[in-house]
Amino acid sequence: MRVIETARALQTLAEAERCAGQRLALVPTMGALHAGHRALLDAARKRADRVWLSIFVNPTQFGPKEDLARYPRPREHDLKLCREAGVDAVFLPSEEEMYPPGSQTFVEVTELSQGLCGRSRPAHFRGVATVVTKLLLIAKPHLAVFGEKDYQQLAVIRRLVQDLRMDVEILGVPTVREVDGLALSSRNVSLAAEARQQARVLVRALEAAERALASGELESAELLDLVRGELAKASRARVDYAELCDAQTLAPAPSVLAVPTLLALAVVFRNASEPDASVRLIDNRVLYPKPRQENRL
Amino acid sequence: MRVIETARALQTLAEAERCAGQRLALVPTMGALHAGHRALLDAARKRADRVWLSIFVNPTQFGPKEDLARYPRPREHDLKLCREAGVDAVFLPSEEEMYPPGSQTFVEVTELSQGLCGRSRPAHFRGVATVVTKLLLIAKPHLAVFGEKDYQQLAVIRRLVQDLRMDVEILGVPTVREVDGLALSSRNVSLAAEARQQARVLVRALEAAERALASGELESAELLDLVRGELAKASRARVDYAELCDAQTLAPAPSVLAVPTLLALAVVFRNASEPDASVRLIDNRVLYPKPRQENRL
Repeated sequence: MRVIETARALQTLAEAERCAGQRLALVPTMGALHAGHRALLDAARKRADRVWLSIFVNPTQFGPKEDLARYPRPREHDLKLCREAGVDAVFLPSEEEMYPPGSQTFVEVTELSQGLCGRSRPAHFRGVATVVTKLLLIAKPHLAVFGEKDYQQLAVIRRLVQDLRMDVEILGVPTVREVDGLALSSRNVSLAAEARQQARVLVRALEAAERALASGELESAELLDLVRGELAKASRARVDYAELCDAQTLAPAPSVLAVPTLLALAVVFRNASEPDASVRLIDNRVLYPKPRQENRL
Repeated sequence: MRVIETARALQTLAEAERCAGQRLALVPTMGALHAGHRALLDAARKRADRVWLSIFVNPTQFGPKEDLARYPRPREHDLKLCREAGVDAVFLPSEEEMYPPGSQTFVEVTELSQGLCGRSRPAHFRGVATVVTKLLLIAKPHLAVFGEKDYQQLAVIRRLVQDLRMDVEILGVPTVREVDGLALSSRNVSLAAEARQQARVLVRALEAAERALASGELESAELLDLVRGELAKASRARVDYAELCDAQTLAPAPSVLAVPTLLALAVVFRNASEPDASVRLIDNRVLYPKPRQENRL
Protein backbone atom coordinates (compact mmCIF):
# COMPACT_ATOMS: atom_id res chain seq x y z
CA MET A 1 0.00 0.00 0.00
CA ARG A 2 1.40 3.36 -1.00
CA VAL A 3 1.15 6.39 1.24
CA ILE A 4 1.18 9.59 -0.80
CA GLU A 5 1.53 13.03 0.70
CA THR A 6 1.58 15.48 -2.22
CA ALA A 7 -1.06 16.46 -4.73
CA ARG A 8 1.49 16.32 -7.53
CA ALA A 9 2.47 12.72 -6.77
CA LEU A 10 -1.14 11.54 -6.67
CA GLN A 11 -2.01 13.40 -9.88
CA THR A 12 0.92 11.76 -11.64
CA LEU A 13 -0.16 8.33 -10.41
CA ALA A 14 -3.79 9.01 -11.38
CA GLU A 15 -2.81 10.02 -14.90
CA ALA A 16 -0.69 6.90 -15.34
CA GLU A 17 -3.39 4.59 -13.96
CA ARG A 18 -6.16 6.16 -16.05
CA CYS A 19 -4.07 5.82 -19.19
CA ALA A 20 -3.30 2.22 -18.28
CA GLY A 21 -7.04 1.60 -18.39
CA GLN A 22 -7.47 1.22 -14.65
CA ARG A 23 -10.73 2.39 -13.07
CA LEU A 24 -10.01 4.50 -9.99
CA ALA A 25 -12.17 4.93 -6.89
CA LEU A 26 -11.53 7.48 -4.15
CA VAL A 27 -12.96 7.27 -0.64
CA PRO A 28 -12.48 10.71 0.97
CA THR A 29 -12.43 10.56 4.78
CA MET A 30 -11.32 12.51 7.83
CA GLY A 31 -9.74 9.35 9.26
CA ALA A 32 -10.69 7.65 12.55
CA LEU A 33 -11.82 4.85 10.32
CA HIS A 34 -14.49 2.35 11.35
CA ALA A 35 -16.72 -0.31 9.80
CA GLY A 36 -18.70 2.42 8.02
CA HIS A 37 -15.60 3.45 6.09
CA ARG A 38 -14.85 -0.22 5.49
CA ALA A 39 -18.24 -0.51 3.78
CA LEU A 40 -17.31 2.44 1.55
CA LEU A 41 -14.02 0.71 0.65
CA ASP A 42 -15.77 -2.57 -0.09
CA ALA A 43 -18.30 -0.81 -2.33
CA ALA A 44 -15.42 0.95 -4.11
CA ARG A 45 -13.55 -2.32 -4.59
CA LYS A 46 -16.54 -3.87 -6.35
CA ARG A 47 -16.59 -1.06 -8.90
CA ALA A 48 -12.95 -0.13 -9.46
CA ASP A 49 -9.51 -1.55 -10.15
CA ARG A 50 -7.72 0.79 -7.77
CA VAL A 51 -9.12 1.90 -4.44
CA TRP A 52 -7.66 5.02 -2.87
CA LEU A 53 -8.57 6.52 0.48
CA SER A 54 -7.76 10.04 1.59
CA ILE A 55 -7.42 11.14 5.20
CA PHE A 56 -7.62 14.86 5.83
CA VAL A 57 -9.24 16.56 8.80
CA ASN A 58 -10.45 19.57 6.87
CA PRO A 59 -10.26 22.73 8.99
CA THR A 60 -12.58 24.81 6.78
CA GLN A 61 -15.57 22.58 7.53
CA PHE A 62 -15.32 23.12 11.29
CA GLY A 63 -16.84 26.18 12.95
CA PRO A 64 -14.72 28.26 15.37
CA LYS A 65 -16.31 26.58 18.41
CA GLU A 66 -16.41 23.06 17.00
CA ASP A 67 -14.30 20.00 17.71
CA LEU A 68 -11.48 20.40 15.14
CA ALA A 69 -8.73 20.07 17.78
CA ARG A 70 -10.50 17.17 19.51
CA TYR A 71 -11.29 15.28 16.30
CA PRO A 72 -9.63 11.84 16.64
CA ARG A 73 -6.53 11.19 14.51
CA PRO A 74 -5.47 7.56 15.10
CA ARG A 75 -3.10 7.31 12.13
CA GLU A 76 -1.62 3.87 12.79
CA HIS A 77 -5.05 2.35 13.34
CA ASP A 78 -6.28 4.00 10.12
CA LEU A 79 -3.40 2.72 8.01
CA LYS A 80 -3.87 -0.78 9.45
CA LEU A 81 -7.57 -0.76 8.52
CA CYS A 82 -6.65 0.42 5.02
CA ARG A 83 -4.10 -2.37 4.61
CA GLU A 84 -6.63 -4.94 5.77
CA ALA A 85 -9.21 -3.58 3.35
CA GLY A 86 -6.80 -3.89 0.43
CA VAL A 87 -6.52 -0.15 -0.20
CA ASP A 88 -3.99 0.54 -2.97
CA ALA A 89 -2.98 4.04 -1.90
CA VAL A 90 -3.66 6.34 1.03
CA PHE A 91 -3.51 10.08 0.40
CA LEU A 92 -2.36 11.82 3.56
CA PRO A 93 -1.76 15.49 2.73
CA SER A 94 -0.63 18.21 5.11
CA GLU A 95 -2.85 21.21 5.72
CA GLU A 96 -0.49 23.33 3.59
CA GLU A 97 -0.74 20.86 0.73
CA MET A 98 -4.51 21.27 0.68
CA TYR A 99 -4.56 24.99 1.49
CA PRO A 100 -1.42 26.63 0.02
CA PRO A 101 -0.35 29.90 1.69
CA GLY A 102 -2.65 32.71 0.62
CA SER A 103 -5.49 30.32 -0.24
CA GLN A 104 -8.72 32.18 -0.88
CA THR A 105 -10.74 29.98 -3.23
CA PHE A 106 -13.99 28.41 -2.07
CA VAL A 107 -16.65 26.29 -3.72
CA GLU A 108 -20.19 26.95 -2.63
CA VAL A 109 -23.40 25.02 -3.29
CA THR A 110 -25.99 27.57 -2.36
CA GLU A 111 -29.54 26.26 -1.73
CA LEU A 112 -28.70 22.73 -0.59
CA SER A 113 -26.22 24.06 1.99
CA GLN A 114 -28.64 26.31 3.80
CA GLY A 115 -30.94 24.14 5.90
CA LEU A 116 -30.38 21.30 8.38
CA CYS A 117 -26.69 21.12 9.35
CA GLY A 118 -26.01 24.25 7.31
CA ARG A 119 -28.18 26.27 9.69
CA SER A 120 -26.24 25.36 12.83
CA ARG A 121 -22.89 25.07 10.99
CA PRO A 122 -22.90 28.09 8.62
CA ALA A 123 -19.61 27.57 6.72
CA HIS A 124 -19.60 23.78 7.03
CA PHE A 125 -20.73 22.82 3.53
CA ARG A 126 -18.61 25.50 1.90
CA GLY A 127 -15.66 23.77 3.56
CA VAL A 128 -16.90 20.34 2.47
CA ALA A 129 -17.54 21.42 -1.14
CA THR A 130 -14.14 23.11 -1.33
CA VAL A 131 -12.13 20.20 0.03
CA VAL A 132 -14.03 17.58 -1.96
CA THR A 133 -13.45 19.57 -5.15
CA LYS A 134 -9.73 19.67 -4.38
CA LEU A 135 -9.57 15.96 -3.56
CA LEU A 136 -11.35 15.07 -6.80
CA LEU A 137 -9.00 17.32 -8.77
CA ILE A 138 -5.99 15.70 -7.10
CA ALA A 139 -7.02 12.04 -7.27
CA LYS A 140 -8.87 12.26 -10.61
CA PRO A 141 -10.98 9.20 -9.81
CA HIS A 142 -13.69 7.70 -11.99
CA LEU A 143 -15.75 7.09 -8.86
CA ALA A 144 -15.93 8.67 -5.40
CA VAL A 145 -17.75 7.00 -2.52
CA PHE A 146 -19.53 8.65 0.41
CA GLY A 147 -21.77 7.47 3.25
CA GLU A 148 -25.50 8.11 3.31
CA LYS A 149 -25.32 8.96 7.01
CA ASP A 150 -24.15 12.41 5.90
CA TYR A 151 -27.19 12.79 3.67
CA GLN A 152 -26.95 16.53 3.15
CA GLN A 153 -23.22 16.29 2.44
CA LEU A 154 -23.92 13.65 -0.19
CA ALA A 155 -26.62 15.82 -1.76
CA VAL A 156 -24.24 18.81 -1.83
CA ILE A 157 -21.48 16.73 -3.43
CA ARG A 158 -23.79 15.22 -6.05
CA ARG A 159 -24.97 18.71 -6.98
CA LEU A 160 -21.46 20.12 -7.07
CA VAL A 161 -20.19 17.37 -9.35
CA GLN A 162 -23.14 17.82 -11.68
CA ASP A 163 -22.93 21.62 -11.71
CA LEU A 164 -19.16 21.83 -12.22
CA ARG A 165 -19.39 19.16 -14.94
CA MET A 166 -16.89 16.95 -13.15
CA ASP A 167 -16.15 13.71 -14.93
CA VAL A 168 -16.69 11.53 -11.85
CA GLU A 169 -19.44 9.25 -10.57
CA ILE A 170 -20.65 9.71 -6.99
CA LEU A 171 -21.76 6.61 -5.11
CA GLY A 172 -23.70 6.73 -1.82
CA VAL A 173 -23.42 3.76 0.54
CA PRO A 174 -26.05 2.90 3.21
CA THR A 175 -25.25 3.71 6.82
CA VAL A 176 -23.58 1.00 8.87
CA ARG A 177 -24.93 0.64 12.43
CA GLU A 178 -23.96 -0.78 15.80
CA VAL A 179 -25.98 -3.74 17.13
CA ASP A 180 -28.34 -1.34 18.93
CA GLY A 181 -28.86 0.69 15.76
CA LEU A 182 -26.56 3.67 16.48
CA ALA A 183 -25.08 4.88 13.18
CA LEU A 184 -21.30 4.47 13.07
CA SER A 185 -19.45 7.77 13.38
CA SER A 186 -15.90 8.73 14.21
CA ARG A 187 -17.41 10.87 16.95
CA ASN A 188 -19.04 7.92 18.76
CA VAL A 189 -15.80 7.17 20.63
CA SER A 190 -16.15 10.53 22.38
CA LEU A 191 -19.44 9.47 24.02
CA ALA A 192 -19.17 8.55 27.69
CA ALA A 193 -21.06 5.45 28.78
CA GLU A 194 -24.32 7.11 29.75
CA ALA A 195 -24.49 9.29 26.65
CA ARG A 196 -23.58 6.32 24.48
CA GLN A 197 -26.47 4.39 26.00
CA GLN A 198 -28.86 7.26 25.37
CA ALA A 199 -27.64 7.81 21.79
CA ARG A 200 -29.91 4.94 20.76
CA VAL A 201 -32.80 7.40 20.80
CA LEU A 202 -31.71 8.61 17.37
CA VAL A 203 -32.50 5.39 15.56
CA ARG A 204 -35.53 4.79 17.77
CA ALA A 205 -36.94 8.13 16.74
CA LEU A 206 -36.39 7.31 13.07
CA GLU A 207 -38.05 3.94 13.51
CA ALA A 208 -41.02 5.42 15.37
CA ALA A 209 -41.65 7.77 12.46
CA GLU A 210 -41.29 4.99 9.96
CA ARG A 211 -43.78 2.79 11.84
CA ALA A 212 -46.29 5.64 12.09
CA LEU A 213 -45.96 6.30 8.37
CA ALA A 214 -46.47 2.61 7.65
CA SER A 215 -49.69 2.69 9.63
CA GLY A 216 -50.96 5.63 7.58
CA GLU A 217 -49.75 8.77 9.38
CA LEU A 218 -48.90 11.40 6.74
CA GLU A 219 -49.06 14.58 8.83
CA SER A 220 -45.64 16.20 9.23
CA ALA A 221 -46.55 17.73 12.58
CA GLU A 222 -47.71 14.39 14.01
CA LEU A 223 -44.62 12.59 12.79
CA LEU A 224 -42.31 15.23 14.22
CA ASP A 225 -44.16 15.15 17.54
CA LEU A 226 -43.50 11.42 17.71
CA VAL A 227 -39.84 11.94 16.87
CA ARG A 228 -39.39 14.66 19.47
CA GLY A 229 -41.16 12.50 22.02
CA GLU A 230 -38.61 9.74 21.47
CA LEU A 231 -35.66 12.12 21.60
CA ALA A 232 -36.98 13.68 24.83
CA LYS A 233 -36.49 10.35 26.59
CA ALA A 234 -32.71 10.97 26.57
CA SER A 235 -31.83 13.28 29.47
CA ARG A 236 -28.36 14.03 28.07
CA ALA A 237 -29.66 15.00 24.62
CA ARG A 238 -30.36 18.46 23.23
CA VAL A 239 -32.08 18.43 19.85
CA ASP A 240 -30.28 20.62 17.31
CA TYR A 241 -32.88 19.85 14.69
CA ALA A 242 -35.48 17.24 13.78
CA GLU A 243 -36.86 18.02 10.36
CA LEU A 244 -38.78 16.63 7.45
CA CYS A 245 -37.76 17.86 4.02
CA ASP A 246 -37.96 16.98 0.36
CA ALA A 247 -35.43 14.18 -0.21
CA GLN A 248 -34.22 15.79 -3.44
CA THR A 249 -34.19 19.54 -2.84
CA LEU A 250 -34.03 19.50 1.00
CA ALA A 251 -36.79 22.14 1.00
CA PRO A 252 -39.16 21.90 4.02
CA ALA A 253 -41.75 19.14 3.60
CA PRO A 254 -45.41 20.12 3.20
CA SER A 255 -47.82 19.53 6.09
CA VAL A 256 -49.01 16.30 4.49
CA LEU A 257 -46.28 14.07 3.08
CA ALA A 258 -46.62 12.93 -0.54
CA VAL A 259 -43.15 12.40 -2.02
CA PRO A 260 -39.98 10.77 -0.65
CA THR A 261 -39.15 12.77 2.45
CA LEU A 262 -35.96 12.98 4.44
CA LEU A 263 -36.32 12.75 8.19
CA ALA A 264 -33.08 14.27 9.44
CA LEU A 265 -31.91 14.49 13.03
CA ALA A 266 -29.03 16.22 14.76
CA VAL A 267 -28.72 15.79 18.51
CA VAL A 268 -26.04 17.03 20.90
CA PHE A 269 -25.16 14.68 23.77
CA ARG A 270 -23.45 15.99 26.87
CA ASN A 271 -21.17 13.68 28.78
CA ALA A 272 -21.72 13.77 32.56
CA SER A 273 -17.98 13.80 33.32
CA GLU A 274 -16.99 16.60 30.93
CA PRO A 275 -20.04 18.76 30.29
CA ASP A 276 -18.15 21.08 27.92
CA ALA A 277 -17.13 18.29 25.58
CA SER A 278 -20.49 17.63 23.97
CA VAL A 279 -20.82 15.26 21.01
CA ARG A 280 -23.13 16.13 18.12
CA LEU A 281 -24.54 13.14 16.24
CA ILE A 282 -26.66 13.03 13.11
CA ASP A 283 -28.83 10.36 11.55
CA ASN A 284 -31.53 10.22 8.90
CA ARG A 285 -34.01 8.09 7.07
CA VAL A 286 -35.85 8.61 3.83
CA LEU A 287 -39.56 8.07 4.34
CA TYR A 288 -41.59 6.89 1.36
CA PRO A 289 -45.29 7.73 1.62
CA LYS A 290 -47.34 4.98 -0.08
CA PRO A 291 -46.84 3.40 -2.48
CA ARG A 292 -43.91 1.89 -0.59
CA GLN A 293 -40.62 1.90 -2.43
CA GLU A 294 -37.22 0.66 -1.46
CA ASN A 295 -35.98 2.52 1.58
CA ARG A 296 -32.81 3.79 0.01
CA LEU A 297 -31.38 7.14 -1.15
CA MET B 1 -11.74 21.18 -37.22
CA ARG B 2 -14.23 19.55 -34.87
CA VAL B 3 -17.08 21.47 -33.31
CA ILE B 4 -18.13 19.92 -30.01
CA GLU B 5 -21.24 20.90 -28.11
CA THR B 6 -21.40 18.63 -25.06
CA ALA B 7 -19.21 18.35 -22.00
CA ARG B 8 -19.32 14.58 -22.21
CA ALA B 9 -18.00 14.51 -25.78
CA LEU B 10 -15.12 16.85 -24.99
CA GLN B 11 -14.21 14.93 -21.84
CA THR B 12 -14.10 11.70 -23.81
CA LEU B 13 -11.87 13.30 -26.43
CA ALA B 14 -9.63 14.84 -23.77
CA GLU B 15 -9.16 11.52 -22.03
CA ALA B 16 -8.26 9.79 -25.30
CA GLU B 17 -5.83 12.54 -26.34
CA ARG B 18 -4.12 12.68 -22.93
CA CYS B 19 -3.66 8.92 -22.93
CA ALA B 20 -2.29 9.10 -26.47
CA GLY B 21 0.42 11.38 -25.11
CA GLN B 22 -0.90 14.56 -26.72
CA ARG B 23 -0.40 17.83 -24.87
CA LEU B 24 -3.68 19.79 -24.82
CA ALA B 25 -4.15 23.55 -24.70
CA LEU B 26 -7.46 25.31 -24.13
CA VAL B 27 -8.16 28.92 -25.03
CA PRO B 28 -11.40 29.91 -23.25
CA THR B 29 -13.19 32.83 -24.93
CA MET B 30 -16.57 34.52 -25.19
CA GLY B 31 -16.22 34.59 -28.99
CA ALA B 32 -16.18 37.72 -31.17
CA LEU B 33 -12.64 36.67 -31.90
CA HIS B 34 -9.96 39.13 -32.97
CA ALA B 35 -6.18 39.30 -33.33
CA GLY B 36 -5.82 39.20 -29.54
CA HIS B 37 -7.43 35.76 -29.46
CA ARG B 38 -5.29 34.79 -32.42
CA ALA B 39 -2.20 35.60 -30.31
CA LEU B 40 -3.54 33.31 -27.57
CA LEU B 41 -4.02 30.54 -30.13
CA ASP B 42 -0.52 31.01 -31.53
CA ALA B 43 0.98 30.90 -28.04
CA ALA B 44 -1.00 27.72 -27.35
CA ARG B 45 0.15 26.14 -30.60
CA LYS B 46 3.79 26.64 -29.64
CA ARG B 47 3.29 24.73 -26.40
CA ALA B 48 0.76 22.02 -27.21
CA ASP B 49 -0.08 19.28 -29.72
CA ARG B 50 -3.79 20.02 -29.72
CA VAL B 51 -5.28 23.50 -29.53
CA TRP B 52 -8.88 23.84 -28.45
CA LEU B 53 -10.90 27.02 -28.18
CA SER B 54 -14.15 27.40 -26.29
CA ILE B 55 -16.79 30.00 -27.08
CA PHE B 56 -19.32 30.66 -24.36
CA VAL B 57 -20.85 34.01 -23.46
CA ASN B 58 -21.09 33.31 -19.75
CA PRO B 59 -24.22 34.88 -18.24
CA THR B 60 -23.04 34.65 -14.61
CA GLN B 61 -20.19 37.10 -15.20
CA PHE B 62 -22.50 39.85 -16.43
CA GLY B 63 -24.32 42.13 -13.99
CA PRO B 64 -28.09 42.69 -14.39
CA LYS B 65 -27.53 46.05 -16.15
CA GLU B 66 -24.57 44.96 -18.26
CA ASP B 67 -24.26 44.15 -21.94
CA LEU B 68 -24.99 40.39 -21.97
CA ALA B 69 -27.72 40.69 -24.61
CA ARG B 70 -25.67 43.12 -26.71
CA TYR B 71 -22.44 41.10 -26.50
CA PRO B 72 -21.44 40.29 -30.11
CA ARG B 73 -21.89 36.66 -31.24
CA PRO B 74 -20.52 36.41 -34.81
CA ARG B 75 -20.36 32.60 -34.94
CA GLU B 76 -19.41 32.14 -38.61
CA HIS B 77 -16.64 34.73 -38.34
CA ASP B 78 -15.37 33.02 -35.17
CA LEU B 79 -15.30 29.55 -36.71
CA LYS B 80 -13.50 30.93 -39.76
CA LEU B 81 -10.81 32.53 -37.59
CA CYS B 82 -10.42 29.25 -35.70
CA ARG B 83 -10.02 27.31 -38.93
CA GLU B 84 -7.42 29.77 -40.18
CA ALA B 85 -5.54 29.53 -36.89
CA GLY B 86 -5.39 25.74 -37.12
CA VAL B 87 -7.61 25.13 -34.10
CA ASP B 88 -8.23 21.39 -33.66
CA ALA B 89 -11.56 21.61 -31.86
CA VAL B 90 -14.02 24.35 -30.92
CA PHE B 91 -16.18 23.80 -27.85
CA LEU B 92 -19.50 25.55 -28.33
CA PRO B 93 -21.78 24.58 -25.44
CA SER B 94 -25.33 25.76 -24.85
CA GLU B 95 -26.17 27.65 -21.68
CA GLU B 96 -27.91 24.56 -20.32
CA GLU B 97 -24.82 22.46 -20.96
CA MET B 98 -22.76 24.79 -18.78
CA TYR B 99 -25.48 25.50 -16.22
CA PRO B 100 -27.70 22.40 -15.86
CA PRO B 101 -31.22 23.07 -14.52
CA GLY B 102 -31.10 23.73 -10.78
CA SER B 103 -27.45 24.82 -10.92
CA GLN B 104 -26.34 26.39 -7.65
CA THR B 105 -22.59 25.81 -7.43
CA PHE B 106 -20.18 28.73 -7.54
CA VAL B 107 -16.44 29.11 -7.24
CA GLU B 108 -15.25 32.21 -5.46
CA VAL B 109 -11.76 33.69 -5.14
CA THR B 110 -12.25 36.06 -2.28
CA GLU B 111 -9.57 38.79 -1.84
CA LEU B 112 -8.40 39.09 -5.45
CA SER B 113 -12.00 39.52 -6.67
CA GLN B 114 -12.82 42.49 -4.49
CA GLY B 115 -11.07 45.55 -5.90
CA LEU B 116 -10.81 47.08 -9.40
CA CYS B 117 -13.40 45.50 -11.72
CA GLY B 118 -14.80 43.52 -8.77
CA ARG B 119 -15.92 46.76 -7.13
CA SER B 120 -18.04 47.95 -10.05
CA ARG B 121 -19.00 44.41 -11.13
CA PRO B 122 -19.74 42.63 -7.82
CA ALA B 123 -20.50 39.08 -9.04
CA HIS B 124 -18.26 39.25 -12.12
CA PHE B 125 -15.28 37.26 -10.90
CA ARG B 126 -17.48 34.68 -9.19
CA GLY B 127 -18.96 34.09 -12.63
CA VAL B 128 -15.52 33.97 -14.23
CA ALA B 129 -14.07 31.60 -11.63
CA THR B 130 -17.11 29.33 -11.89
CA VAL B 131 -17.16 29.08 -15.66
CA VAL B 132 -13.38 28.69 -15.97
CA THR B 133 -13.45 25.88 -13.41
CA LYS B 134 -16.14 24.14 -15.45
CA LEU B 135 -14.29 24.63 -18.74
CA LEU B 136 -11.08 23.22 -17.26
CA LEU B 137 -12.98 20.24 -15.85
CA ILE B 138 -14.58 19.62 -19.24
CA ALA B 139 -11.57 20.10 -21.52
CA LYS B 140 -8.98 18.68 -19.09
CA PRO B 141 -6.15 20.59 -20.78
CA HIS B 142 -2.50 20.59 -19.75
CA LEU B 143 -2.39 24.32 -20.50
CA ALA B 144 -4.94 27.13 -20.58
CA VAL B 145 -4.19 30.49 -22.16
CA PHE B 146 -5.57 33.91 -21.21
CA GLY B 147 -4.83 37.50 -22.20
CA GLU B 148 -3.00 39.90 -19.92
CA LYS B 149 -5.44 42.67 -20.85
CA ASP B 150 -7.78 41.11 -18.30
CA TYR B 151 -5.09 41.30 -15.63
CA GLN B 152 -7.35 40.81 -12.62
CA GLN B 153 -9.12 37.90 -14.33
CA LEU B 154 -5.76 36.27 -14.98
CA ALA B 155 -4.73 36.78 -11.34
CA VAL B 156 -8.03 35.26 -10.14
CA ILE B 157 -7.61 32.25 -12.44
CA ARG B 158 -3.99 31.65 -11.44
CA ARG B 159 -5.01 31.74 -7.77
CA LEU B 160 -8.02 29.46 -8.34
CA VAL B 161 -5.95 26.87 -10.16
CA GLN B 162 -3.31 26.92 -7.45
CA ASP B 163 -5.83 26.80 -4.58
CA LEU B 164 -7.99 24.04 -6.03
CA ARG B 165 -4.85 22.05 -6.90
CA MET B 166 -5.85 21.83 -10.55
CA ASP B 167 -3.39 19.95 -12.70
CA VAL B 168 -3.18 22.64 -15.37
CA GLU B 169 -0.69 25.33 -16.35
CA ILE B 170 -1.98 28.89 -16.85
CA LEU B 171 -0.26 31.01 -19.48
CA GLY B 172 -0.75 34.79 -19.78
CA VAL B 173 -0.17 36.41 -23.19
CA PRO B 174 0.66 40.11 -23.67
CA THR B 175 -2.07 42.42 -24.89
CA VAL B 176 -2.39 42.92 -28.63
CA ARG B 177 -3.06 46.52 -29.70
CA GLU B 178 -4.39 48.53 -32.64
CA VAL B 179 -1.97 50.79 -34.50
CA ASP B 180 -2.90 53.70 -32.23
CA GLY B 181 -2.33 51.58 -29.11
CA LEU B 182 -5.94 50.73 -28.22
CA ALA B 183 -6.01 47.26 -26.65
CA LEU B 184 -7.99 44.79 -28.75
CA SER B 185 -11.33 43.90 -27.22
CA SER B 186 -14.50 42.30 -28.51
CA ARG B 187 -16.27 45.40 -27.22
CA ASN B 188 -14.29 47.81 -29.45
CA VAL B 189 -16.70 47.20 -32.35
CA SER B 190 -19.44 48.80 -30.27
CA LEU B 191 -17.57 52.13 -30.16
CA ALA B 192 -18.95 54.82 -32.49
CA ALA B 193 -16.36 56.84 -34.45
CA GLU B 194 -15.88 59.67 -31.97
CA ALA B 195 -15.66 57.38 -28.93
CA ARG B 196 -13.29 55.09 -30.82
CA GLN B 197 -11.06 58.07 -31.52
CA GLN B 198 -11.10 59.10 -27.88
CA ALA B 199 -10.46 55.57 -26.59
CA ARG B 200 -6.78 56.18 -27.34
CA VAL B 201 -6.59 58.05 -24.02
CA LEU B 202 -6.36 54.72 -22.22
CA VAL B 203 -2.97 53.78 -23.60
CA ARG B 204 -1.82 57.40 -23.52
CA ALA B 205 -2.58 57.52 -19.81
CA LEU B 206 -0.61 54.31 -19.24
CA GLU B 207 2.31 55.68 -21.23
CA ALA B 208 2.26 58.99 -19.39
CA ALA B 209 2.58 57.16 -16.08
CA GLU B 210 5.33 54.97 -17.41
CA ARG B 211 7.31 57.97 -18.68
CA ALA B 212 6.91 59.76 -15.36
CA LEU B 213 8.10 56.68 -13.49
CA ALA B 214 11.09 56.38 -15.82
CA SER B 215 12.04 59.95 -15.02
CA GLY B 216 11.94 59.22 -11.29
CA GLU B 217 8.35 59.88 -10.17
CA LEU B 218 7.47 57.32 -7.48
CA GLU B 219 4.53 59.08 -5.78
CA SER B 220 1.25 57.25 -6.32
CA ALA B 221 -0.78 60.44 -6.04
CA GLU B 222 1.33 62.24 -8.65
CA LEU B 223 1.19 59.33 -11.06
CA LEU B 224 -2.58 59.01 -10.70
CA ASP B 225 -3.00 62.76 -11.21
CA LEU B 226 -1.13 62.44 -14.47
CA VAL B 227 -3.27 59.49 -15.52
CA ARG B 228 -6.53 61.24 -14.66
CA GLY B 229 -5.32 64.31 -16.52
CA GLU B 230 -4.86 62.27 -19.67
CA LEU B 231 -8.22 60.53 -19.30
CA ALA B 232 -9.97 63.87 -18.76
CA LYS B 233 -9.02 64.89 -22.28
CA ALA B 234 -11.70 62.52 -23.62
CA SER B 235 -15.09 64.22 -23.42
CA ARG B 236 -16.99 60.98 -23.95
CA ALA B 237 -15.14 59.14 -21.19
CA ARG B 238 -16.23 58.53 -17.60
CA VAL B 239 -13.52 56.98 -15.44
CA ASP B 240 -14.78 53.91 -13.58
CA TYR B 241 -11.43 53.51 -11.85
CA ALA B 242 -7.77 54.41 -12.27
CA GLU B 243 -5.76 52.64 -9.60
CA LEU B 244 -2.31 51.57 -8.58
CA CYS B 245 -2.05 48.29 -6.73
CA ASP B 246 0.40 45.56 -5.83
CA ALA B 247 0.90 43.51 -9.00
CA GLN B 248 0.72 40.24 -7.02
CA THR B 249 -1.97 40.74 -4.36
CA LEU B 250 -3.89 43.63 -6.03
CA ALA B 251 -3.88 45.38 -2.65
CA PRO B 252 -3.75 49.22 -2.91
CA ALA B 253 -0.25 50.48 -3.64
CA PRO B 254 1.56 52.49 -0.95
CA SER B 255 1.98 56.25 -1.41
CA VAL B 256 5.54 55.72 -2.71
CA LEU B 257 5.95 52.88 -5.18
CA ALA B 258 8.63 50.27 -4.42
CA VAL B 259 7.58 46.92 -5.92
CA PRO B 260 6.02 45.99 -9.28
CA THR B 261 2.76 47.88 -9.37
CA LEU B 262 -0.27 47.42 -11.55
CA LEU B 263 -1.72 50.55 -13.08
CA ALA B 264 -5.26 49.49 -13.96
CA LEU B 265 -7.84 51.55 -15.82
CA ALA B 266 -11.53 51.09 -16.56
CA VAL B 267 -13.25 53.79 -18.57
CA VAL B 268 -16.80 53.99 -19.87
CA PHE B 269 -17.25 55.62 -23.28
CA ARG B 270 -20.62 56.99 -24.33
CA ASN B 271 -21.48 57.00 -28.01
CA ALA B 272 -23.02 60.27 -29.17
CA SER B 273 -25.70 58.54 -31.28
CA GLU B 274 -26.90 56.08 -28.62
CA PRO B 275 -26.07 57.54 -25.20
CA ASP B 276 -27.54 54.53 -23.35
CA ALA B 277 -25.26 52.04 -25.08
CA SER B 278 -22.05 52.87 -23.31
CA VAL B 279 -18.91 50.77 -23.80
CA ARG B 280 -16.68 49.97 -20.84
CA LEU B 281 -13.02 49.38 -21.72
CA ILE B 282 -10.14 48.28 -19.51
CA ASP B 283 -6.39 48.42 -19.91
CA ASN B 284 -3.38 48.06 -17.64
CA ARG B 285 0.35 48.18 -17.37
CA VAL B 286 2.71 46.82 -14.76
CA LEU B 287 5.06 49.55 -13.58
CA TYR B 288 8.47 48.50 -12.33
CA PRO B 289 10.06 51.03 -9.98
CA LYS B 290 13.86 50.96 -10.42
CA PRO B 291 15.72 48.76 -10.94
CA ARG B 292 13.96 48.33 -14.28
CA GLN B 293 12.85 44.83 -15.10
CA GLU B 294 11.10 43.40 -18.08
CA ASN B 295 7.71 45.04 -18.47
CA ARG B 296 5.74 41.84 -18.38
CA LEU B 297 3.27 40.09 -16.02
